[in-house]
Amino acid sequence: MSGIKAMAAALAAGAASAQSLTAAALDRIAARDGAVRAFITVAADAMNQARASDARRKSGQIGALEGIPVAIKDNIDVAGLPTTDGTAHFARRIAAADAHVTARLRSAGAIILGKLNMHEGALGATTDNPFWGRCDNPTAPGHTPGGSSGGSAAAVAAGFVPLALGSDTLGSVRIPAAYCGLWGLKPTRGLIGRSGMSHLSWTLDTIGPIATSAADLSLALTVLAGPDAKDPVSLDATLINSALHSPLCLGIPDLAETVLEPEVQAAFAAFCDQLRAQGVRLMPVRITDWHPPTLRRAGLLLAEAEAGVLLGPAMDSDPNGFSAGFRDLVAFGRSVASAKLMAAAHRVYQTGPAVLAALSGVDALLLPTAPHQAFPHGAPVPEGQADLTSLASAAGLPAVAFPIPTGADERPVSAQLVGRAWHDQRLLALAHHLTGGADDL
Amino acid sequence: MSGIKAMAAALAAGAASAQSLTAAALDRIAARDGAVRAFITVAADAMNQARASDARRKSGQIGALEGIPVAIKDNIDVAGLPTTDGTAHFARRIAAADAHVTARLRSAGAIILGKLNMHEGALGATTDNPFWGRCDNPTAPGHTPGGSSGGSAAAVAAGFVPLALGSDTLGSVRIPAAYCGLWGLKPTRGLIGRSGMSHLSWTLDTIGPIATSAADLSLALTVLAGPDAKDPVSLDATLINSALHSPLCLGIPDLAETVLEPEVQAAFAAFCDQLRAQGVRLMPVRITDWHPPTLRRAGLLLAEAEAGVLLGPAMDSDPNGFSAGFRDLVAFGRSVASAKLMAAAHRVYQTGPAVLAALSGVDALLLPTAPHQAFPHGAPVPEGQADLTSLASAAGLPAVAFPIPTGADERPVSAQLVGRAWHDQRLLALAHHLTGGADDL
Repeated sequence: MSGIKAMAAALAAGAASAQSLTAAALDRIAARDGAVRAFITVAADAMNQARASDARRKSGQIGALEGIPVAIKDNIDVAGLPTTDGTAHFARRIAAADAHVTARLRSAGAIILGKLNMHEGALGATTDNPFWGRCDNPTAPGHTPGGSSGGSAAAVAAGFVPLALGSDTLGSVRIPAAYCGLWGLKPTRGLIGRSGMSHLSWTLDTIGPIATSAADLSLALTVLAGPDAKDPVSLDATLINSALHSPLCLGIPDLAETVLEPEVQAAFAAFCDQLRAQGVRLMPVRITDWHPPTLRRAGLLLAEAEAGVLLGPAMDSDPNGFSAGFRDLVAFGRSVASAKLMAAAHRVYQTGPAVLAALSGVDALLLPTAPHQAFPHGAPVPEGQADLTSLASAAGLPAVAFPIPTGADERPVSAQLVGRAWHDQRLLALAHHLTGGADDL
Repeated sequence: MSGIKAMAAALAAGAASAQSLTAAALDRIAARDGAVRAFITVAADAMNQARASDARRKSGQIGALEGIPVAIKDNIDVAGLPTTDGTAHFARRIAAADAHVTARLRSAGAIILGKLNMHEGALGATTDNPFWGRCDNPTAPGHTPGGSSGGSAAAVAAGFVPLALGSDTLGSVRIPAAYCGLWGLKPTRGLIGRSGMSHLSWTLDTIGPIATSAADLSLALTVLAGPDAKDPVSLDATLINSALHSPLCLGIPDLAETVLEPEVQAAFAAFCDQLRAQGVRLMPVRITDWHPPTLRRAGLLLAEAEAGVLLGPAMDSDPNGFSAGFRDLVAFGRSVASAKLMAAAHRVYQTGPAVLAALSGVDALLLPTAPHQAFPHGAPVPEGQADLTSLASAAGLPAVAFPIPTGADERPVSAQLVGRAWHDQRLLALAHHLTGGADDL
């Protein structure tokens, strides 16, 4: 896997061109994506985009992602390509315009290689898509890449692109990043604009990048973050980077209510030991009223209910455009009593102050990203995949997922840092530092 | 009515003291509040607070509101006083600590005179409270002061205090400001922290000031705005003041779907003519999918459903702690089908981009605050009181309500400006300028 920074250096040195990088990426996709199934649509104009980028470079116009091939989850619009949202129903819904984030990538000179496979409707975490194929995990072949942004993680892990966009409602960027051994960011609510995205839940949806390093996520974030006049939760606000404690101090939430797989438990404990040995202070913190499965179910119920409004009419008119399983989830969201639904919404809302209180006095919270490692295709899907990611989703706070050392097992294990609102860049720098990276990103 | 700035000048000149201002306010309340019924609780320690303020002033410690008497709606905590939320059920709920905004006022040196009458549970706009009395409109005696922050407007209009805090979910600061001829601000969602407030709707609630001028609101806002670590929608962000057009350009939304009283229609038309004569450009703008009564009903349904979660258990255990009418509204919110409720929530959410689109190319939107003037006690309550205020509430955008000239009728008419997120101070300055104020606030 070659990261953005290495590609950018090769481009700057003239050792590569946007055309050579794009052609190589298209070749790899042609050779391997029959097995990986990361892509739903490959952009026919990719080489044209690359030629235009090379021409820009020649004329001295060099964007922050100039000539870098990227790919985009299929619930985010790319002008001229379908936005299937992982369904059959929307197979021919051609986007008239770029989504806000797509336009930002394009303005920065990125080559948009195509649209990525995803769990149907972004509601689930295996990316075993009934219409677009079962996406495989290139880091652990034969296993799920996770989801719902499974195609985004798989495309990066397979080396097709160094950067992919996913969306994260309750963990859908972080879980596939975790299962594929990659870095993923769920940004602060409002930091990355969402207009031109097919929403699952307008309350909880965020768009986030997946890449191979903190440095690449940080670069991507400088391109992606900023005001989106068409997204009502987007804000044009100044990023705040408060000072860190010295020594660094991380809060470790009480995970007694969560069943961690032994491998995850062991890798997380070893990572904590390693941090302590580096002089980082780890403090147990209590998050008031946090019961991970209950919060995950509350978030899911809210998402299903909001999906009911957004997709219900299409399901009524074209039931076969969706799988029976997905229809059932959304039907459940449409039928639940409002008191139960509002109680779930209130639980989600109340998570914000609880996490903020836990963050007071520490630089960030540290916890595993998922309770499990990637599991084999066809194995029973663990119910609690989003138990630990739904925390930052409900709180609207930034969370970065990153691989941590494992033992003999080749399947990745991931930890996440959860931080204060608007501290996304600071959180990436902190994760970079904790994983042994050089000081600057 | 004496404003904050005049009081502050008198205090600075030694012509008044916190004690003399507080004693005078308490005397006025004792003499007149039997008829006005603005207060639910008068703070027994008000004179002690005033003595402490005078001592601070002597020692050179002078806060931005040093020695200024203020009062607070009874759904916002003041340590040691009950927070009734306008109900009987919570009559003896003594606040253990100040709400975020109360603490900010206190730190700025304000004297907290007491807690103000309100429409029961903040769900309604007459402040004819079944437990705490029918609040009267000092500007138009015998008429409603509006609501739900009717006591807040009445306390300012009666000259008891120059500044009162209200809360605005769908118009509850702006409607009473309108009916009483005052200035009221509904801030950008997230700008003024809400912890320590008894919520009606955690999604739509905001806390806002009522005063007699833009200058006083602006001063109050400098004290009230800022991060609240316990409010998940609060943000520590930098205020943005983009440049205004020259000449000024205001968007006038299409009000064809709203029935305006002839007096309101005439005063608003005359105000528009006056602005045009001053060289202000007025442009008709369309707000996509805005049907005022439908949006108001959607916001109300969401508020009722959220109130169901927050107050339902108390209503079940102590039905007589609430009026039958209020219980019915909340019961309706608890019983509605989730699909209908989520459709309402989605309509509220979609209002943001629609208003942002209408704001592009203009400095602010201008529209009447309420379709009616204050009406006599006991008259039928017009259904559409919040038709025009619910727009900024749903969009999460700032709106300032201010009196405009009327004809022979002594009852006030009000207009509101709706602006971009985080532009609250700019919006106050713009309203100040449009109403003939001097250039600086």
